[in-house]
Amino acid sequence: MTHALMDDHVFYSWSAQAEIDPMVITGAHGSRIRDDAGNEYLDFSSQLVFTNLGHGHPRVVRAIQEQAELLCTLAPQHATGVRSEAARLIAGLAPDGLEKVFFTNGGADANEHAIRMARLHTGRPKVLSAYRSYHGGTQTAVNVTGDPRRWPSDTGTAGVVRFFGPFRYRSEFHAETEEQECARALAHLRRTIEAEGPATIAAIILETIPGTAGIMPPPPGYLPGVRELCDRFGIVLILDEVMAGFGRAGAWFALDRYDVRPDLITFAKGVNSGYVPLGGVVISDAIADTFAHTPYPGGLTYSGHPLATAAAVAAINAMTDEGTVANADRLGRDLLGPGLRELAEKHPVIGDVRGVGVFWAVELVADRDTREPLPVADTLAVVAACRRAGLLPFTTANRLHLVPPCNVPDADVTTALGMLDGALSSGS
Amino acid sequence: MTHALMDDHVFYSWSAQAEIDPMVITGAHGSRIRDDAGNEYLDFSSQLVFTNLGHGHPRVVRAIQEQAELLCTLAPQHATGVRSEAARLIAGLAPDGLEKVFFTNGGADANEHAIRMARLHTGRPKVLSAYRSYHGGTQTAVNVTGDPRRWPSDTGTAGVVRFFGPFRYRSEFHAETEEQECARALAHLRRTIEAEGPATIAAIILETIPGTAGIMPPPPGYLPGVRELCDRFGIVLILDEVMAGFGRAGAWFALDRYDVRPDLITFAKGVNSGYVPLGGVVISDAIADTFAHTPYPGGLTYSGHPLATAAAVAAINAMTDEGTVANADRLGRDLLGPGLRELAEKHPVIGDVRGVGVFWAVELVADRDTREPLPVADTLAVVAACRRAGLLPFTTANRLHLVPPCNVPDADVTTALGMLDGALSSGS
Repeated sequence: MTHALMDDHVFYSWSAQAEIDPMVITGAHGSRIRDDAGNEYLDFSSQLVFTNLGHGHPRVVRAIQEQAELLCTLAPQHATGVRSEAARLIAGLAPDGLEKVFFTNGGADANEHAIRMARLHTGRPKVLSAYRSYHGGTQTAVNVTGDPRRWPSDTGTAGVVRFFGPFRYRSEFHAETEEQECARALAHLRRTIEAEGPATIAAIILETIPGTAGIMPPPPGYLPGVRELCDRFGIVLILDEVMAGFGRAGAWFALDRYDVRPDLITFAKGVNSGYVPLGGVVISDAIADTFAHTPYPGGLTYSGHPLATAAAVAAINAMTDEGTVANADRLGRDLLGPGLRELAEKHPVIGDVRGVGVFWAVELVADRDTREPLPVADTLAVVAACRRAGLLPFTTANRLHLVPPCNVPDADVTTALGMLDGALSSGS
Repeated sequence: MTHALMDDHVFYSWSAQAEIDPMVITGAHGSRIRDDAGNEYLDFSSQLVFTNLGHGHPRVVRAIQEQAELLCTLAPQHATGVRSEAARLIAGLAPDGLEKVFFTNGGADANEHAIRMARLHTGRPKVLSAYRSYHGGTQTAVNVTGDPRRWPSDTGTAGVVRFFGPFRYRSEFHAETEEQECARALAHLRRTIEAEGPATIAAIILETIPGTAGIMPPPPGYLPGVRELCDRFGIVLILDEVMAGFGRAGAWFALDRYDVRPDLITFAKGVNSGYVPLGGVVISDAIADTFAHTPYPGGLTYSGHPLATAAAVAAINAMTDEGTVANADRLGRDLLGPGLRELAEKHPVIGDVRGVGVFWAVELVADRDTREPLPVADTLAVVAACRRAGLLPFTTANRLHLVPPCNVPDADVTTALGMLDGALSSGS
């Protein structure tokens, strides 16, 4: 660790504290970030996949500065213009019939509250979630998470049942086509519901496009099929758009790409590019009605924080005015997707490329036929080579996620693809 | 609701959505807040008891504006100066041997993570908490909460056991003296531990001074006695300083008033006066060591958020330079405490006055002898009279909490006491 932070008192997320060696970041702008040695990197991680407008967007920065001058903070029981305006804008982006927004501090507590709403709305105890998923770090959120990071926290939560979603590259269902994968995944979900007891299940929670677990866009029929099962059995459908939402998938919400209307949408990250901590739940009229005359038993000190909602208003308006979402879609179709597929043709270490918008996974394998994941050490060697070249991807397991800001310049994408090409040649 | 927010899409915390009638706040400065009708109020609620430096403190506002310009946001795995400096300052305020700070977005997730740390450190499943308590709104945090707001969320959490803490005014232990209340409360806790099985208990979580539940400073021997029980049975002691910390109790941490050293301290609110969402856990060396070479299985996107930690650095430095904490202590001893006790002598509706620093509860009763709580409608009439006079207290059950900023001018305290006097004369 560098001298400036030698006596560091920070306890780091998801880390062995004695083994951390963080980059020390001194500044950032747009899709670039700078360390204390003066090195500049193309930030194709968007940090933890949240700076959808890049770093230091002037309009969002200015909105924060002006709101700080006017009114930094306010208790949730009061009202103020910027909080209402953020809720209006966000509800306007969601499907009709989801009109209320409950603000939280991030994605984890958004999912915690969505699950509570579903349980109280249905009067049922259980929640179903996918093994290949990440929903947050607090107890219930990490427990609906399928990711092995859940394991140490399996104590203390009741009523969560997990199932497998569709993922053709590593099919649980021995499917040979996308259609087969979809049909079998839906049959598996139905069988799970029936085996658990439909009348005991409050909600199914799914990332619209699972993110950290591998950026796996579902087959077109899957989410409509899940919706049908939810309708049949009176189950609330929660779509987690924390990572996939607000332009990441080349749409305001990733669910816009599918013919599906959830009952609850959770969001965070891209809503204001993480400039101020903010998350929330968009709520269907039916669920909001449950709490029309019965108090909703949940809340938090910073719900609808003025600084955070001011950043959201500015970010959403900037994305609208600048065509940021359409740009992300175009980048995925015309540049990033084709570029990564081209690299896959050249480098046998790439087993699969998948994604949409600015939301792409490159899966590294030891063997293309067996699809055996590349060992972690080898994956980290590729990451290190990327970093030496000046490229910062998001990394997890045997995958690189290429997830730049939605407004990344085309030239930066081309440069990044070149850097990745070099890293794959040298590092693996 | 006023015209500007007529089409409000905000879903409100802890509320029946069809019955809300929020104040619309347009600005605030110091200990005063202004609504959209141009009325000004003395903010003796500090919102939800968190604007310990009042509204719009120029030094904190400036720090936010400058950090927004420099670097709004950063993933938790990286490092940056302001994050490390905030951790250094906070660890410096905690007792020796608590040297690491894990940053969260607020108090609820701070408690969630503290409980996880305790469970993994001890390898034990259960957590003990007090019935008269509030620890946050996410699932585990609300479940360790004793407050009835927990009831609708009792589904879904395992391993929480509740007990009664000391509270002489409404003693669970039929005590006649403070010493007796303390001894009996400790015996009750010991009996609970023994009945639950000491080797099954990971942690005891307590607010150092329970806040929303009634601002009940514990008898001097209670927390040292709890510490002794924790030592005897290998239990982690978590002190929740979310509301009581950072000057509120006339000390940096309320625990400084007692001879007790916890293993984990949770904080939020006053750490940066809530100008940017921030909370955290201060961690003992022994617990940090558990995660030296084993990853801590928890995290969050905005852990150590630059804007939030910049606000904390500025707030702590401002409080230090301006003697804010000593001022809060003085206000409690010389002005607010004596003033409230004087009102109690004059108004029989006041059953009890208790507190310290700028952290005071006024308990309203229908009958001083039976201590029967004043009915809610009558309490709300007093609150309405306060508001008409221009005073905004924090209200819960049959209590007014007088919790102004730590730097409230003496003259505002005198004015507020006069307003309360008038409201008690007219409203009850």
